[in-house]
Amino acid sequence: MTSGLQARLRQVRQQSLALIEPLEPEDLCLQGMADASPPKWHLGHTTWFFETFVLRPQLERGQDLAFEPADPRWGFLFNSYYDAIGARHPRPQRGLLSRPSIAAVLDWRHRVDAALELLLQQLEAWTEERHPPVLELVELGLQHEQQHQELLLMDLLDGFSRNPLEPPYGPGPERAFETAWRGSDRHQPTWLEHPGGLVRVGHAGGGFHFDNEAPRHRQWLEPFAIAARLVSNADYAAFIADGGYDRPDLWMSEGWAVATSRGWRTPRYWRDNLEFSLAGPVKRHPEAPVRHLSWFEADAYARWAGARLPTEAEWEVLALHLPRAHGLLWQWTASPYRPYPGFRAAPGAVGEYNGKFMSSQMVLRGSCFLTPAGHARSSYRNFYPPACRWMAAGLRLAQDRR
Amino acid sequence: MTSGLQARLRQVRQQSLALIEPLEPEDLCLQGMADASPPKWHLGHTTWFFETFVLRPQLERGQDLAFEPADPRWGFLFNSYYDAIGARHPRPQRGLLSRPSIAAVLDWRHRVDAALELLLQQLEAWTEERHPPVLELVELGLQHEQQHQELLLMDLLDGFSRNPLEPPYGPGPERAFETAWRGSDRHQPTWLEHPGGLVRVGHAGGGFHFDNEAPRHRQWLEPFAIAARLVSNADYAAFIADGGYDRPDLWMSEGWAVATSRGWRTPRYWRDNLEFSLAGPVKRHPEAPVRHLSWFEADAYARWAGARLPTEAEWEVLALHLPRAHGLLWQWTASPYRPYPGFRAAPGAVGEYNGKFMSSQMVLRGSCFLTPAGHARSSYRNFYPPACRWMAAGLRLAQDRR
Amino acid sequence: MTSGLQARLRQVRQQSLALIEPLEPEDLCLQGMADASPPKWHLGHTTWFFETFVLRPQLERGQDLAFEPADPRWGFLFNSYYDAIGARHPRPQRGLLSRPSIAAVLDWRHRVDAALELLLQQLEAWTEERHPPVLELVELGLQHEQQHQELLLMDLLDGFSRNPLEPPYGPGPERAFETAWRGSDRHQPTWLEHPGGLVRVGHAGGGFHFDNEAPRHRQWLEPFAIAARLVSNADYAAFIADGGYDRPDLWMSEGWAVATSRGWRTPRYWRDNLEFSLAGPVKRHPEAPVRHLSWFEADAYARWAGARLPTEAEWEVLALHLPRAHGLLWQWTASPYRPYPGFRAAPGAVGEYNGKFMSSQMVLRGSCFLTPAGHARSSYRNFYPPACRWMAAGLRLAQDRR
Amino acid sequence: MTSGLQARLRQVRQQSLALIEPLEPEDLCLQGMADASPPKWHLGHTTWFFETFVLRPQLERGQDLAFEPADPRWGFLFNSYYDAIGARHPRPQRGLLSRPSIAAVLDWRHRVDAALELLLQQLEAWTEERHPPVLELVELGLQHEQQHQELLLMDLLDGFSRNPLEPPYGPGPERAFETAWRGSDRHQPTWLEHPGGLVRVGHAGGGFHFDNEAPRHRQWLEPFAIAARLVSNADYAAFIADGGYDRPDLWMSEGWAVATSRGWRTPRYWRDNLEFSLAGPVKRHPEAPVRHLSWFEADAYARWAGARLPTEAEWEVLALHLPRAHGLLWQWTASPYRPYPGFRAAPGAVGEYNGKFMSSQMVLRGSCFLTPAGHARSSYRNFYPPACRWMAAGLRLAQDRR
Repeated sequence: MTSGLQARLRQVRQQSLALIEPLEPEDLCLQGMADASPPKWHLGHTTWFFETFVLRPQLERGQDLAFEPADPRWGFLFNSYYDAIGARHPRPQRGLLSRPSIAAVLDWRHRVDAALELLLQQLEAWTEERHPPVLELVELGLQHEQQHQELLLMDLLDGFSRNPLEPPYGPGPERAFETAWRGSDRHQPTWLEHPGGLVRVGHAGGGFHFDNEAPRHRQWLEPFAIAARLVSNADYAAFIADGGYDRPDLWMSEGWAVATSRGWRTPRYWRDNLEFSLAGPVKRHPEAPVRHLSWFEADAYARWAGARLPTEAEWEVLALHLPRAHGLLWQWTASPYRPYPGFRAAPGAVGEYNGKFMSSQMVLRGSCFLTPAGHARSSYRNFYPPACRWMAAGLRLAQDRR
Repeated sequence: MTSGLQARLRQVRQQSLALIEPLEPEDLCLQGMADASPPKWHLGHTTWFFETFVLRPQLERGQDLAFEPADPRWGFLFNSYYDAIGARHPRPQRGLLSRPSIAAVLDWRHRVDAALELLLQQLEAWTEERHPPVLELVELGLQHEQQHQELLLMDLLDGFSRNPLEPPYGPGPERAFETAWRGSDRHQPTWLEHPGGLVRVGHAGGGFHFDNEAPRHRQWLEPFAIAARLVSNADYAAFIADGGYDRPDLWMSEGWAVATSRGWRTPRYWRDNLEFSLAGPVKRHPEAPVRHLSWFEADAYARWAGARLPTEAEWEVLALHLPRAHGLLWQWTASPYRPYPGFRAAPGAVGEYNGKFMSSQMVLRGSCFLTPAGHARSSYRNFYPPACRWMAAGLRLAQDRR
Repeated sequence: MTSGLQARLRQVRQQSLALIEPLEPEDLCLQGMADASPPKWHLGHTTWFFETFVLRPQLERGQDLAFEPADPRWGFLFNSYYDAIGARHPRPQRGLLSRPSIAAVLDWRHRVDAALELLLQQLEAWTEERHPPVLELVELGLQHEQQHQELLLMDLLDGFSRNPLEPPYGPGPERAFETAWRGSDRHQPTWLEHPGGLVRVGHAGGGFHFDNEAPRHRQWLEPFAIAARLVSNADYAAFIADGGYDRPDLWMSEGWAVATSRGWRTPRYWRDNLEFSLAGPVKRHPEAPVRHLSWFEADAYARWAGARLPTEAEWEVLALHLPRAHGLLWQWTASPYRPYPGFRAAPGAVGEYNGKFMSSQMVLRGSCFLTPAGHARSSYRNFYPPACRWMAAGLRLAQDRR
Repeated sequence: MTSGLQARLRQVRQQSLALIEPLEPEDLCLQGMADASPPKWHLGHTTWFFETFVLRPQLERGQDLAFEPADPRWGFLFNSYYDAIGARHPRPQRGLLSRPSIAAVLDWRHRVDAALELLLQQLEAWTEERHPPVLELVELGLQHEQQHQELLLMDLLDGFSRNPLEPPYGPGPERAFETAWRGSDRHQPTWLEHPGGLVRVGHAGGGFHFDNEAPRHRQWLEPFAIAARLVSNADYAAFIADGGYDRPDLWMSEGWAVATSRGWRTPRYWRDNLEFSLAGPVKRHPEAPVRHLSWFEADAYARWAGARLPTEAEWEVLALHLPRAHGLLWQWTASPYRPYPGFRAAPGAVGEYNGKFMSSQMVLRGSCFLTPAGHARSSYRNFYPPACRWMAAGLRLAQDRR
């Protein structure tokens, strides 16, 4: 019964290790900015999550897992933001953790994996009613680890982008990006129309979802249309050429202040005719979707184009019909990240997972070329502050229809 | 035909002058923080608004208004945020403008008032179709000035609060506050229920409204209830006594970071058993509504109380039934400030009035004891960043019903 | 016996009042930056000094001065940096003190003046041995007030310089400056030579001096020369034209970092061909001495000119022979501000006057066109951090001779 | 003739490699703060120094050294502060340079070493007059590398001190420290007296010295005494127990502001009864000299003890008689770091070595337990800003005698 989960556990945990294979040892501590984390920290944090939320409660109940938890100080180091669990190492200083060494962290991973496998085996002997909480937490840990796999690569791109040597991570992710956008319709955008009305949004139940995707609820929409394709580099270059970064009337006031004070003139990784990527500097294709821009830039572009961003509800009700909804780039929406009507955070520390970030952030929908297979859902709500640019985010347009 | 407007013009403009009567000359340049502005600046800015958006376009058309605009540099000084109009003096440095002197600013006000009155008289001779744009801009200027009358007092409270001598402005506003809350129902809160369903929100047309109140549109609501009274000082004191400022589980992550880094332990103006007010330090009545707290504090309080803030749509559909919806305190809502479906900003510089602030701010509904008479509407959308506390803001609770 | 002091007391105290006569009321609270103070604060602080260090000790001894000290909170407001006296209002927020009003401060001044006069009269009846401490403290208070008279004008220049209207204070100070430099030798600089050897520096005793001018002591000098005239605007313009602000080899590393991060390209108040002054923008005369530059700029200029700044000992031993040593501009020296061998700070709070600033500051010698008459001495040690530019400071060159 | 230099070259270069042997790969990029640099950067920078100032000029003259300089971008990465050489990577971001990898840097070191050895061999065939500049630059490169060996360990201590795991570097340096202070006279300090008079300070010529140690010159000293031993942990603990960190009268105004804003209550690495060191947390011996305190703390301590810091001239004229002048701790002096009379910086980029730091820093004399053998001199002038604490610095007292 748990054998499917066991296989997934091995696959996901192994995938994290595969991600650091191309790295030099010094890269493991690379933290380019306060918002990002070093690869070693991601490996440690995802392991801490399993130890803290899955293994420790079982150990405290007397379950014998042949497992000795890590040095308690590691909890301080690898806690990300769970205040209920205790104090934590300041995020901007994760790059200073040259110790514990990668060898020590990998050893910990292996011990935690062994204990998790043992736990899943023991589960077979339990009454069925004891299963669900454990299985759900293991599943949450795996989903959590997949999120960090994506983050690890985005963070690494940020770190490498600050090195004048422009080091590449490897060709894989960029090939995935190109495969995803090649074959896009290169003609003028066509629109997918929706008549509006009372719709249902949110996860319908059945299968894993994060708490912020529920409850499923009704929402009234006015008639609208969403573009069939994402905004391309060529589209965005036209916006720049038309003075997009010099026209305050196109921008949110806050965005204009950010853009001018930081000197933004292009998306984050544009460099002359190239674009910095995980494959190092690569040619910037006009037809490829523009990426690594902030919500403020996406919003300004949409205004310039005589359109707007779609709300997350609009995106979701058309998701099944949107070409490249998934696997290419996260797509900024017009929606602030707030709880759905009737939202309840999970009890305990796990409840800090999503709910406490529901202010001053904007929702992104879809998934991107770095998202692990099987981690994408139409109801998935990703979120970032509107000034962030290091994520693999792009946009598609929407318009009112009436 | 314009005589009603003429009377209002005189009344509103005169009211601004009345507000500075209790002040010492040095108070006129007092700017307590970057978000606030000195009284003299408010007087100048509201005058600049009329000169720039009403008088200048007429002068440019050749209309003879016996009026000479101010030194062009004054436009630089008294522009608040209209990028389309040109560069402007940095907001945090408004307190450095000891010149132009108050005498010069008042002289300018009188000259602008005279020209406006002349324009309104001339209007009688125009064809009717030329009327509306001018009348609308004059009306907008008056509404704008009334907003600044409220702001002037809030800003002054902030400035005086930073003076160890705790100077009072005068007894008037505080008397208005007390009159507004006295007679509140002091018993347990009772709830106003709403069954949910498809409702209409936004200004229905007829009479003045800001662009952000339109278009009127449909929205689906789940069943909910809103508290009949605002949260009181006694209520909030119970939250504090229960460790409200020490429990991160009650807070948005961003709010917790703000509260701890700024050392918040109470609402902004609480001082021992007193509260700093425009009347100086006054006794803090347990039954009076709590005021001068941030959205983050309001949100945390609501979570502690097992409730939540109402959305702006919920507030609006019950507005006519809510005791003290107006005239007591602005009320934080759960809604980020975003455009209504189909929103279009006005063309030209006036279009910068509201639309460009639609990111990272939260909506407040109602009005407060400092709001000029006749300036309140059920569809009025006030907005501030969630960490601001210097406004006369409080909260009322809401709950899901199902 | 004390009648000379009484006359000086009246003259100096009256002079402070004369300085604010040309001001608008709003100017009295003008604080352009954290390093500067508003005029009203200078008037209050110098009065606080007399009340705190002269009157209060006499009152505490039971002397009847028919004087009631100010509200104790005023001590908090008007203490500048005397930690031994107690806590104090943060310096950068002095501009927020719209209260006490100027009327209240002037009333306080008059009451303190009356008490001081009464004290000086009572002194006549005292035994002579009780005289000196009181007389010395009154004298110190007068010297202190004269320093603030100079500061008040420098601070005002800074504040006015930030106003786009470029308001003038009045023609007086600028006339004094022009009188001081006109008639300068406009030919190539000539050098005053000194053979070096063992010299004595420091105040020789007899007459008032600050503690930092003592003790007089010996110092060994190598042969050197000092320029007979101050560096002129034309000289400095040649430095700029030669790329002075673009050549890091001319600068201290710290100065280069400051200059580039703040975007310095000229002295503080240069504006095209004009110079902002207390008379508003005025023509910048090539032969006039350059002013309002930092020590870093003075040091870089000297290096560019194949020279160096004089040490304070070099300046002092030649002071009597240096044309315009006094009354034109303070002159940067090569000397860090440190105690003389055997220096002892005065006991008590007055001992904080000078000694605690003896780190990270550079000495200026001479005096300037804003210095009150009778306040200049050859042994006077003025001091400012090397990045400051708002003082009336210039430079003259020195060279090694051997 | 150059064989002595060759042997030294091998020894010094090898010593740098020995220093990183105890490290984990991730430690090589550890940069705890903007003032510090990662170990790998130190290895690269010292190599860059030889390539840039020794090898490149020879290559440009056509000398065949069988050597290909590094990727030109490496010059950007490994330049520390030589503005004349070109732009450079920002110092606070050295920790982000996960590439070039340590393997690539070590390979570069070996190639540079080989070319240097070849150059020294070729030198044998040159006319003698061409020797000195090359030999002097090689010698300067070695002295420079020895400075960085000391810095590397100080920087590492800073970095490790920020890790909650408190990792040790190894036992060697701490053993050297203990050996150096053990056997100190543990009785009351005794004073070494000097009658004052005209003395000579600065390097006397013969043997290597930095430009800032010259020219040797005369200076007049008043009678003084210097303590025979350094201030101990027990001494400093008495200062703390007596409220040393709470008494502003003991501190420079700037130091008080720094100490209070940073919350200093002890020297940098004190932790309860332990002290963090390169051996990890170790017992803090009362008789051991206090270390890792700022100039501000040293100055305040001296004032509390009724003494003062010695000037650098006082220290130097007694250096031969001072027990533990060298090899224990750098010793703060009362002297700002300024040029000696007649100082001339070396021409070209090497001239940036010392001269441009002669503002806002204080001189330290002696050497410390981390200083490589043979690198100490009585005339050596070390210097740091007065608020720095991460260096192995202590103090000894001085007093006036007259």
